[in-house]
Amino acid sequence: MKKILFVLLVLPLLTFASDQVKYIFLFIGDGMGMAQRMAADRYKQLTIGEGLLMNTFPVQGITTTWCADHFITDSAASGTAIACGTKTNTGVLGLDADGNRLESVAEMAKIKGRKVGIISSVSLNNATPAAFYAHNPSRSNLYDISLDLLNSNFDFFGGGSFSDLDGKNSKNARGNFLDLARADGYTVTTTREQFDALDKLPAIAISPKLDGDAMPFNLDMEPGDLTLADITAKAIDLLDNDNGFFIMIEGGKIDWCGHANDIGGNIGETIGMDNAIQVAYDFALRNPDDTLIVVTADHETGGLALGYSGTHYESNIDRVSAQKAAYTTFGRAYANLKKDTAATFDDIKPLVTQYFSFKFEGDDGDPLLLKDYEVKKLEEGFKRSREAGTYSPVEVREELYNDYDPFVVELYHLTANRAGLAWTTYSHTAIPVVTSAYGEESDEFEGMTDNTDMANTIKTLL
Amino acid sequence: MKKILFVLLVLPLLTFASDQVKYIFLFIGDGMGMAQRMAADRYKQLTIGEGLLMNTFPVQGITTTWCADHFITDSAASGTAIACGTKTNTGVLGLDADGNRLESVAEMAKIKGRKVGIISSVSLNNATPAAFYAHNPSRSNLYDISLDLLNSNFDFFGGGSFSDLDGKNSKNARGNFLDLARADGYTVTTTREQFDALDKLPAIAISPKLDGDAMPFNLDMEPGDLTLADITAKAIDLLDNDNGFFIMIEGGKIDWCGHANDIGGNIGETIGMDNAIQVAYDFALRNPDDTLIVVTADHETGGLALGYSGTHYESNIDRVSAQKAAYTTFGRAYANLKKDTAATFDDIKPLVTQYFSFKFEGDDGDPLLLKDYEVKKLEEGFKRSREAGTYSPVEVREELYNDYDPFVVELYHLTANRAGLAWTTYSHTAIPVVTSAYGEESDEFEGMTDNTDMANTIKTLL
Repeated sequence: MKKILFVLLVLPLLTFASDQVKYIFLFIGDGMGMAQRMAADRYKQLTIGEGLLMNTFPVQGITTTWCADHFITDSAASGTAIACGTKTNTGVLGLDADGNRLESVAEMAKIKGRKVGIISSVSLNNATPAAFYAHNPSRSNLYDISLDLLNSNFDFFGGGSFSDLDGKNSKNARGNFLDLARADGYTVTTTREQFDALDKLPAIAISPKLDGDAMPFNLDMEPGDLTLADITAKAIDLLDNDNGFFIMIEGGKIDWCGHANDIGGNIGETIGMDNAIQVAYDFALRNPDDTLIVVTADHETGGLALGYSGTHYESNIDRVSAQKAAYTTFGRAYANLKKDTAATFDDIKPLVTQYFSFKFEGDDGDPLLLKDYEVKKLEEGFKRSREAGTYSPVEVREELYNDYDPFVVELYHLTANRAGLAWTTYSHTAIPVVTSAYGEESDEFEGMTDNTDMANTIKTLL
Repeated sequence: MKKILFVLLVLPLLTFASDQVKYIFLFIGDGMGMAQRMAADRYKQLTIGEGLLMNTFPVQGITTTWCADHFITDSAASGTAIACGTKTNTGVLGLDADGNRLESVAEMAKIKGRKVGIISSVSLNNATPAAFYAHNPSRSNLYDISLDLLNSNFDFFGGGSFSDLDGKNSKNARGNFLDLARADGYTVTTTREQFDALDKLPAIAISPKLDGDAMPFNLDMEPGDLTLADITAKAIDLLDNDNGFFIMIEGGKIDWCGHANDIGGNIGETIGMDNAIQVAYDFALRNPDDTLIVVTADHETGGLALGYSGTHYESNIDRVSAQKAAYTTFGRAYANLKKDTAATFDDIKPLVTQYFSFKFEGDDGDPLLLKDYEVKKLEEGFKRSREAGTYSPVEVREELYNDYDPFVVELYHLTANRAGLAWTTYSHTAIPVVTSAYGEESDEFEGMTDNTDMANTIKTLL
């Protein structure tokens, strides 16, 4: 009888205790809808023989992403929902729709004595990472957002650099932000040597190579370049301690490639984030009773579909491997050539072959040989690229290309369509995203959840 | 101590016993991807104030749909996977990829003494319902598939009629199928009076109104027309017995509207199936310990995205209510007018206003007033509709319209786009679908499942 009483009394306590999880990883694929995950999975299956790790996690649920003022959210409102657990308006960071300050799960973790790390492949004051430490009515107040970072007292930041480093667009500017961070005690690394040598906190590890303020696209990386996985491994090394940690890792350029309808870049970024998840997973295997990994997304970007009218029931997603560079890299090469106003469509052909492997002449059976109607599409795109905004009414331009270069768009659309894929928009969409989880308390993320549940559930585990 | 032993010994037995579920409903939304479910949910929220019942079920998982020979499945292969639990090739019913006969969950239910009902809003020998009783290497052998129905000894069939009723395309023809069914003991109802009076099994209840061999589109129904919900209620009345039942209910025209890129029809069909789910749910509330409801889909159709390049971050899904008829109904009206080869675009305008509420003249602020570029699109579609297949190379026709009428397509695309939605294909896509479940053993359908898990899990519950 005593034994029964013991069980009755102690079990609830044990259950309560097990609700706390020592090590928590929260991965956010910016713009990573189910289609993006499945396209990358299939691509990896066909080219390497195994799919994405995140798709094998035992918990796979569905998460709604709408924000307070739109069915289709932006990354600030959705980032705030994921980070703080409250819906807010488009563009708002760390405040509710009435402007009240919210507490992020990262801030709560810090208060509870955990070490905290914030990692992103884009700039570290971009909307998604900022949602975990900033409180600002506009995601555009970039310098002010950076200043909020200094108030966070978080232990580790890693990934891209900071936009508006010197506060040129802020009335609160008081010098280069990295200098302020150093003065505040942060070790700031900007070279590979510094990164490898980094062994103390607090620290800000900025990618030695940058594409603008962000890390380079995975598709454009060279062997030895610092990856999201490398930064995740470094964060684990530095943040591991007896009180546990909370680490947020964002794959930020999945979204950028979605906006640009760049399928190769998109798949590369999703795989890049999956590689970072592998690092967290390996840690979880070493700490099986103390680790939770949650993988979610803030919204889908691009309206990617795993099917295209011209290819009917055929899919050849491995054909995306013919694409050799992300849209910014090709865009720069093309813009360079375009400066020569006398350059014709024929002059541009070698660039097309170099970056997309497309051939303008060759055997009929060659899958990379462009068909007549495809060449026509490219010619039309090139013509419109030359004409800039003059070729048709604004509504038609919006539908066809938004602000992207028509020639660049045609090439990336062609790459997707030939693989049996298609895009519908250059913005976000409202389709719910997939949330995957592994480890302790992972079943809390089963079924249909809302993005606010991410923060609210994790807060109960701290 | 005895009590503890009792618990230890009896609990496993109780657990085993509870694995059997007396009443099992399996709903299949043909072509109902997550986008279709969320579009219908949002539409219903905005117009009626509440979303879809199926989206509120406690279990919401993700289900892959690929078949043995394609990443993008057809309904026969996916129907076979859902019904029998084994992957097979495109077009194959109730056989594996090597031609071996499979046992469907419905056949097993019958053997185990359950009553069995098969319901579909399209013809009852169409691929999805047929996957539960037929065994044929080709879904096109419609009459032979009907003959398999007679071998099934299932108790109730309801919905549309049968394609190739007289076996004009079969060497095995031996008379009108409905006569054969009657000779086999089935009561066959074809009028509302007969349906209402139907009180015995076995029975085949054919919709009093038909659109071809299928039930009418929900969007085209009039008050009092027989619905999928009505047939589900009748099936429950007739099939309820002490040994329990298995009922499969297909919303078959969600797929048809997906193929035609008809958003209003699509939403109407999804809501129509949700109404049938409501009937099953009400039954489950009356039989809470004995009922399982599973809602899945065989694949997504149309590559529907909840976002469109021209509308950016704006969604107005309630605008779909301006559409007054499904694509076949409008298509017939338009084809009729088109017979007059002298009819001009101006002559067609009243039809456009009648069926889509679009206005060609009016106040600038009227959201139904067509903009110049939209009128241009319709004019171009009308021109191409007149030119039939001559206006461009076949690949461009495939990409733009497949076999659909260009004018009809432009009108339905316009309706979707103005609501902030877009389609990418006239075929199926490979995006996983959502599986929802409610009631006993529903948690078996959590997380990431494959379409084969539907049959294999339900078989363990029989």
